[in-house]
Order: sequence, then C-alpha cells, then structure tokens
Amino acid sequence: MFESAEIGHCVDKETYDREVPALREALLEAQYDLHQQKRAAVIVLINGIEGAGKGETVKLLSEWMDPRLIEVRTFDQQSDEELARPPAWRYWRHLPAKGRMGVFFGNWYSQMLQARVHGVIKDAVLDQAITGAERLERMLCDEGAVIFKFWFHLSKKQMKARLKALKDDPLHSWRISPLDWQQSKTYDKFVRYGERVLRRTSRDYAPWHIVEGVDPHYRGLTVGKILLEGLQAALSAPKARPRSINVPLLPESRDGLSLLDCLDMTQVLEKDDYKEQLVTEQARLSGLMRDKRMRRHALITVFEGNDAAGKGGAIRRVAAALDPRQYNIVPIAAPSQDERAQPYLWRFWRQIPGRGKFTIFDRSWYGRVLVERVEDFCTQADWMRAYGEINDFEEQLKNSGVIVVKFWLAIDKDTQLERFQEREAIPFKRFKITEEDWRNREKWDLYRTAVCDMVDRTSTEISPWTLVAANDKRCARVKVLRTINEALEAAFAKSDKHVKKNRAMIRI
Amino acid sequence: MFESAEIGHCVDKETYDREVPALREALLEAQYDLHQQKRAAVIVLINGIEGAGKGETVKLLSEWMDPRLIEVRTFDQQSDEELARPPAWRYWRHLPAKGRMGVFFGNWYSQMLQARVHGVIKDAVLDQAITGAERLERMLCDEGAVIFKFWFHLSKKQMKARLKALKDDPLHSWRISPLDWQQSKTYDKFVRYGERVLRRTSRDYAPWHIVEGVDPHYRGLTVGKILLEGLQAALSAPKARPRSINVPLLPESRDGLSLLDCLDMTQVLEKDDYKEQLVTEQARLSGLMRDKRMRRHALITVFEGNDAAGKGGAIRRVAAALDPRQYNIVPIAAPSQDERAQPYLWRFWRQIPGRGKFTIFDRSWYGRVLVERVEDFCTQADWMRAYGEINDFEEQLKNSGVIVVKFWLAIDKDTQLERFQEREAIPFKRFKITEEDWRNREKWDLYRTAVCDMVDRTSTEISPWTLVAANDKRCARVKVLRTINEALEAAFAKSDKHVKKNRAMIRI
Repeated sequence: MFESAEIGHCVDKETYDREVPALREALLEAQYDLHQQKRAAVIVLINGIEGAGKGETVKLLSEWMDPRLIEVRTFDQQSDEELARPPAWRYWRHLPAKGRMGVFFGNWYSQMLQARVHGVIKDAVLDQAITGAERLERMLCDEGAVIFKFWFHLSKKQMKARLKALKDDPLHSWRISPLDWQQSKTYDKFVRYGERVLRRTSRDYAPWHIVEGVDPHYRGLTVGKILLEGLQAALSAPKARPRSINVPLLPESRDGLSLLDCLDMTQVLEKDDYKEQLVTEQARLSGLMRDKRMRRHALITVFEGNDAAGKGGAIRRVAAALDPRQYNIVPIAAPSQDERAQPYLWRFWRQIPGRGKFTIFDRSWYGRVLVERVEDFCTQADWMRAYGEINDFEEQLKNSGVIVVKFWLAIDKDTQLERFQEREAIPFKRFKITEEDWRNREKWDLYRTAVCDMVDRTSTEISPWTLVAANDKRCARVKVLRTINEALEAAFAKSDKHVKKNRAMIRI
Repeated sequence: MFESAEIGHCVDKETYDREVPALREALLEAQYDLHQQKRAAVIVLINGIEGAGKGETVKLLSEWMDPRLIEVRTFDQQSDEELARPPAWRYWRHLPAKGRMGVFFGNWYSQMLQARVHGVIKDAVLDQAITGAERLERMLCDEGAVIFKFWFHLSKKQMKARLKALKDDPLHSWRISPLDWQQSKTYDKFVRYGERVLRRTSRDYAPWHIVEGVDPHYRGLTVGKILLEGLQAALSAPKARPRSINVPLLPESRDGLSLLDCLDMTQVLEKDDYKEQLVTEQARLSGLMRDKRMRRHALITVFEGNDAAGKGGAIRRVAAALDPRQYNIVPIAAPSQDERAQPYLWRFWRQIPGRGKFTIFDRSWYGRVLVERVEDFCTQADWMRAYGEINDFEEQLKNSGVIVVKFWLAIDKDTQLERFQEREAIPFKRFKITEEDWRNREKWDLYRTAVCDMVDRTSTEISPWTLVAANDKRCARVKVLRTINEALEAAFAKSDKHVKKNRAMIRI
C-alpha cells in the first residue's frame, strides 16, 4: 500500500514555481465559492509518519488559501470536560460549519493507531474503532461534508534521516518530542497497523491519499491538487441532492396492525393511587440520582409523542423529583441558522450531559424520522439513513456510560381533539395550541406510520423505546418515572458486576 | 440590612394555597410572553445563608414555571478549560439567550464571598471583585437582560436550628456537605462581608432582594412575586429603547486635526529591506510563540482598518510565521441569529484562546463603535457605553494573562480608490470588492470620526492601539509583526520580574 510513496517522488523548483501561482489562485477561488454558497464543510484529516511534513504542509495550505476560513485543531490531551463525555464529543464540538474548513491533527485515526501501536488495545478493539470511524465519516459526508484524508509517508530510512536532520538543526530540534523518537523504533508497527486502518477506511466518499513526504515541492503540489480537485468536484455537484428514487419504500404492515394498536389505551389510575405511586417513584428517582454509582453515568431521557400527549406534564413530574442543579431540559424546535450549517446530530451532541448529570430532551434527534420525514424537510434517503446514524449515536452514548431512556407518549385521535379544544377554551392554555398543531393533526396517519417505523428501527437492546399509553395522564406519568428508575437500577446493577476497564478513549 | 429578614416572616397555608394558583398562572404567562417576544434574557442569581432554602425555592420555581425555558447552572469547581481563561468566561459561556432564564448558583458573588470569608483575599481585592460584578451586570442589563439577585437569609439561631434539622433527617442529611457546616462557624463573617457586597452592588437596574428563608410559604410567595413583577415590568417596557437624547455628543476636535493626520502616510519600504525585515520578524515571532513563558499567556490580535487597507495580507504574514496548530483566525461578519440573542460581546468571549494559544480577530468587538455606530445599527447610548464595556473586557483579558494587540490599518482615500479599482479589474480579486465597500467609502468622514473616538477612548495602558500607516503594504506588515513581537517580549519580561500569585480566580 505504501510502496509507491517510497520511491523518491520529487518536483523540481522550476516546475513548482511555475505551477504554484495558478494552483493558489484556483484554491482560493474554490474556497470562496464554497464559502459564499455555504456548500459543504471541508474536513481535512492529517495523519502519517513523524517527520513527513504534516505540519509544514498544513502551514503551506494556510498560506495558499484564506486562513480566515480554516480552523486547525489538534486533539491531544482530553480536557476534563471531554473526559466526562463520549470520545467523539470533542470532534463534534469542533466540526467546521458549512463553507469553512477544519484541519484535524491528532484525529480519531491518530488515537486508534497510537493505542494499538503502544499495545493499549488489541486488533479487535482497533477494528471496532475503524468501524466507528467509517460510520462517522459516512454520516458526515451524507450530511454534506467533504472529507480529505492524507497519510504523509516516509520509508524507514527516509524517516531516520529526516529525524536526524531535524535534531541536528537547532531551529527545529524543539519539534521532536520524546514520543516521536520512540516512534522511530516502532516504525514497523506504525506502518503495519496504519495499513490495516487505511485499507479498511478508504471509501469512495472519503478515500485516503498517501503522499510521499520527502520532497516539500512534491508534497505541497500533490496535496494542493488533491484538495483543489475535491473542492471543485463538491462545487460542481448538483446543489439539491436528488430525491433518491433508488431508496426502497418501507414495507407497510400487511394486516394494518401496528405496535401502537397493541397499547392498552383504556388504562386508568385513580387519583389516590396516582398520588401515592407518583410520590414513591419520585422519591426513588431522587435517591437513584444521588447514588454514588450515578457518578459513573449520565442520564438522557427523550420525550416524543403526539401533540397534546402530555410530554410537558410528564417532564415536570420528573423534574419535580430532582435538585434543579442536576438536570437540564432541552426543548427542541426548528434548528437555528448556526445549527443548519452543521450535521443534524450536532445540536444534540452539544447537549450531551457530563457524568453525574441528566439531560431531558423535549423532542429530540428523532425529529429527523418524524416531522422531517412527514413534512418533507429532508429526502427519503436522508431519513432512511438516519435510523442507522441514530443507532450509532446512541451506541456511543451507551458505551461511555450514558443511560438513554426514550418515550413515545401515545394518545388516540379523539383524546387529542378533546385536549386541543380544551386548550383553546382555557385562556391560560391557549399558548399551547397553534395552527400548526391542527395541521399536524390532519397528517395523523402519516405520523403514525413514521412512529411505527421509528420504533421498529431504533428500539434496540442498547436503547429501547418505551411506548406509553397516555390517554390517562396519571398512568403515563407514573409509567415514565418507573421506567427511568428501572433503567437506572439496571445500569447500576450492571456496573456493579464488572466495572470494566474504560476503553472508551480509543473508540470513536 | 438583614434585620427585617430575621423577624420570623411567615405566610399561613390557607393564604398560600389561595394565592399560588394565580401566581403560577401569571408567571407562566409572563414567561411565555417573554419567550415569544424574545424580549430579554432573565438571569437569576441565588445567594445567601446555607440552609435558607435556596435549592428548594429554585425547585419550586421550576415547578411553577415551564422548566424547559429555564437553565439552572452551578458553578463549583472550574474545569481545566475554564482555568485556562479569564474567570468570567464560565459565566459568559452559560448566559441564557433572549427569551430564556438562567439560574446561577455559585455565581460571582458566591466566589468572592467564599474567598473573603476563608481569607483567600483581603477587602481591597473583594472591592475589585465587587466593582467587576457591578460592571458586568450593568452591561448585561444595558444589553437587555433582566437580573434578579436573591439573598436567602437566616439569623444565626435559625440557621443552626435548620442545619440540625436537616442533619437529623435521613432523607436530607446528604445535602449537608462539610463545607456547609464550616460555614455555620463562619456565619458572622459571611453576614458581614455579605452586607458589604450587597450594599455596594444593589443598583436600580439590578437590586438585591433579601428573603427570609425560614418559612417555605413566605419564601416561595415572596420570590415568585418579585419575579413576576420584574418580568411584567420588562414586558411592558417600550420595545425599542429610546434613542437616548440625553447622551452628550462627543466633542469635535476644534482644529480638525486628528491622530490619523499625524501618521506619516508616505513611508515606503524597499523590496529587499522588506524581505529581510519580514523574515527577521517572522522568525522572532516564531521563537516567542515557542517560548516557555508563552504557556502562562495567551495572545489576541485585533485587526481593524479601512476597507482594502490590507488586513488580510497582514494576517497572512503573521500566520506564516506560526505552526497552524497554535493559532486560530476568527473573521467577524454580521452576527448570526444565535449571536443576536446574546450581548454583543458574547461571540468574542466564546473565542478567547486558552493559555499558550493565539487568536487573530479579523475585525472585532470594535464593530460596535465603528460600523454599528456609523450605520445606525445601535443607538448612540449603546455605542457610547461600549467604550467602557470594551475597556472592562480587555482589562479582564489582561488580568488573566492574555496579551491583546490592536491594529488600525490606515490608508488614505486615494489609495483606497486605487485598490478598489484594481480589485475590480483582476478577476481573481473581484470577490474582495462588493457594493457595500463602495457604500462604506461614501461614509469615509463618518468612519474617520468614529475611528478617532475609538482610539481616544480605548487606547489604554492595558491595551493600546497601534495605528499603522498602510499605504505601503510592506511597511504595514513589518510594523504589525514587530509590534506583536514587542508586546510579547514586554509581557514576558514583566512576568519574569514577578510571577504574581494568581488571584484571577476571584476577580470576575
């Protein structure tokens, strides 16, 4: 795989000087066009052999292009805020917005390679990390990112010569950290595992580019041209992605029967029973949230449901059990301008609680497969792939100790009508009902199908859905609280059994 | 000051039960109105004696109001990301947006009181912190925030009884941390310094409310009603603040002579000299940024200047000297939707570099007193107060080790015309010139006045402006680099002399 990057590529100064001006100009133009059109976020991953000119090349690009539209990020030591969250959080928080370019040093590939080379993980875990990287990149590309992956290469001999030269040069010797020297010894491992990683993660939507790092002219021109072609391709791609006709429709249930039909909507809880059970469950939740084992976890609850199903009321009953310093409620409405310049999961990643904390989402990332699907805000291809993306997202949460509890609060159509009318009648509740609610109601069946598909595709062992019959608000509230409590207890019991070595660091 | 909060206020259950429903309803309504109109950000500061019901009252408010529009923040241990920046950064990053409410526990008052009570600081530093708090709040209010400051009070006797009761109650004993008990011993100090703080920071725009904390009914009703009245007042205030006629105009220079006239615009640097000096200064900057002492500092450079004065070119020459991993360039354009829902300094606070890092602002917070002033995007009162707010901001940066270097790149009107025409003629530069540039040019004199006022009012010992004659780009670039280098060297020399005890933590 690396053979052709060890044959001494070089470009003479004349050619270089001749070609660079046009290249710079074209790069700048592409950069500005991309920015003006807010076409895509550009992500450049920088990896490879120490001393192969990674930093120098990025520096060159910053000189050639407009550095005001480039953010260079180095992911070395995790901050404590990062350590308290899933490993990918640090990348999400630094994703470039559409129209901008992010250059990532020390990215997910660096992390997994370092870990494997130094024996912190075995092949199996490396492969998990590889799969994680693939999924992340696939999703980013589908969300309109353009990813460039550069591997700067040197043969072992070239590397040794290069490191020696750097060491002897007083102006540059500061660049060589002890770790880098150590890497000289572990060159073989680095190349072996590097090959494994590159082989498995080079994909049509985000291929690797191996660049021989010996000659600065060759290196610079090569990277510049790859970038230019990629940017130009992104610019010439059709603006609206085609409403993919080749995505298969989801099969309808043959007998019309769905999970929602299996809910017993007639359940009722008497007032006295309700009061007693509510207080019991609230006390239980309060106790669980103060449990020492909560420090190893974070809690996320997702509330989805029909309009007027009582999400707000249920959330208030949950919140009432807690110290307000422990939780945060995030209401989700239409995305803001800044949020629209990012992948749709970005605004949820920003709200992931640190360990010991609890975030309540009032509506959530599932909007993608509910309102966005039904209202045609995204293409079928978009919401179809969202099921997998969401499962990946929740798996990452789970892997780093986040407990995710998801509720669909279901009411029947008549109950909704009653509640809508009640809301309109009571001045104080009028703010709760809008034209939009009535419009949504007309699409009852479409939403119903979307809900069933959502549950079928995202109710997993890792993060199951709880369907709550909510015609009776009391029943619903108690069930919500009880479910959260059970989830917490189950998670605590598990972590008691085997406090696993935290390998999360290298999974992305 | 606390006398009337030690006389045993209480509200009987009947009155409470009678009054609460209407209060809740009115609070909710005010909350929704505020949210729909995006009128103001509401900031609630919670302080006072341990055991006086701070947490319980906030919990009550979350139950009475819609908790989805409330964010409760506890500022206890600083994270390492917070420690690497000015102390106020942690508050800025959690400011609620317009239409939302932020409840701050462990806020700036808690920090300064804890520090004084435990003898970490003396009165003089406490007073500095008090002044800082006042300025921050004044600015937030001027930017459309509504601030409520609650001091929950107990007499010494009441506190002791309360803490004992909590300790004996198994359901609540977890609440009492060792520190709290210690506070029981230091009650006198806490009250004494508390009084000093309250006395000095109770202002018309953000008065303190002292609430006796013994009786939950009294406490709840009192806080609820204060909030309600404050919210209603905010809602009934005129929407557009009046174009304050009582703000005095800035005096014009009597002889028409300004600082800008004193710049020697005829300076020229020959190409060879330029090349040599540029390389020298770049190498110097490169070395300084790698200096160990840089770890105690961060660097911010601000580039302002006439259109086409060469800001971009100068920035590129600075960036060229550096490892791209060390710096970040932040181009400032019109604020986004999310940014407009916050005080104007918010988006700059978000970009403050951590120690060891360098942020280059291409245009900056000075837009407030330049384009916003000239284009009438804000009132005269707004930009007039901005001078002081900006000085405060930069003083905070300076106090926590950030080196701020500010450039005004000045060209004359003819040179601008030449450059505009050149930009229009060269296809590749055409993106650099827009209709807006031509419109701005018509306001040349207005901008000129704004620039002179800006320099007069914000060029301080802490953070001086450097006016750069930029008719000759070479001169300008070398001067920019040299100025940055001198600022770094001066800061390093100072921190060598006396590495001061870092008291920044308790200043806000």
